[in-house]
Amino acid sequence: MSTRIFPTAQDVENAFYESLERNDLALMMAVWAEDEDIVCVHPAGPRLAGQEQVREGWRKIFASGQRLRFQIAQQVRVAGVMLAAHSLHEIITVVGEKQPRPAVIATNVYLRSAAGWRMIVHHASPAPATAAADPAPETPKILH
Amino acid sequence: MSTRIFPTAQDVENAFYESLERNDLALMMAVWAEDEDIVCVHPAGPRLAGQEQVREGWRKIFASGQRLRFQIAQQVRVAGVMLAAHSLHEIITVVGEKQPRPAVIATNVYLRSAAGWRMIVHHASPAPATAAADPAPETPKILH
Repeated sequence: MSTRIFPTAQDVENAFYESLERNDLALMMAVWAEDEDIVCVHPAGPRLAGQEQVREGWRKIFASGQRLRFQIAQQVRVAGVMLAAHSLHEIITVVGEKQPRPAVIATNVYLRSAAGWRMIVHHASPAPATAAADPAPETPKILH
Repeated sequence: MSTRIFPTAQDVENAFYESLERNDLALMMAVWAEDEDIVCVHPAGPRLAGQEQVREGWRKIFASGQRLRFQIAQQVRVAGVMLAAHSLHEIITVVGEKQPRPAVIATNVYLRSAAGWRMIVHHASPAPATAAADPAPETPKILH
């Protein structure tokens, strides 16, 4: 398991989307807490829980070889001492396609561990097509 | 706005599902943080943000008059000082129907405010039918 340190929850989030753009499974798994109770829900998918299921889910996604670009919109953040939660829209473009796919709504939860911040929950679901067509204000809003 | 106090995140969660079973909009809104940046995603719906959108979303759901019963399964909890996140499956039965509907995956985030714990994020999405058919271990797992 990687020893990469993320000083803030936002650093984890940046690395999470970087790993998705790079199809980098090692970086993806370095983003997650080393905890059996991590939870990951891909759009329209079942809930994956624990290191093994979460890794296998990402392995399958990365194996497709599809190159994706992520734009993050309408981010709302709430941060505590031990936990942080981010809500956002993922605007995903497949490399080679002109139009972005319909937006994905994501809730990301981060946990501060001895090894810095890590992801502990990723819950993604497709936004209805009308919501995706709605232009998003790009300014992040910070709650606390 | 209600002044009801919830001493723990689990108390908020219990009241949240109680309000759903009772079609009680006042109790539902008492569950939420008095914060403009609350976020609510209903299954297959867009992201609702802020008091007005969240209240209107629940008003429409309660207006249907449909009576629902909720069973919570596979709950995973992570708790910090200021924030807590719960992941779970909602097994929903419509009163008058024999079979439960396909399960809903929910991520609920709670914030400790001066007025006790409140909900700040509810993100729900339909589980695939195969996942709903999978019997759920009922023991809640507590992370921290």
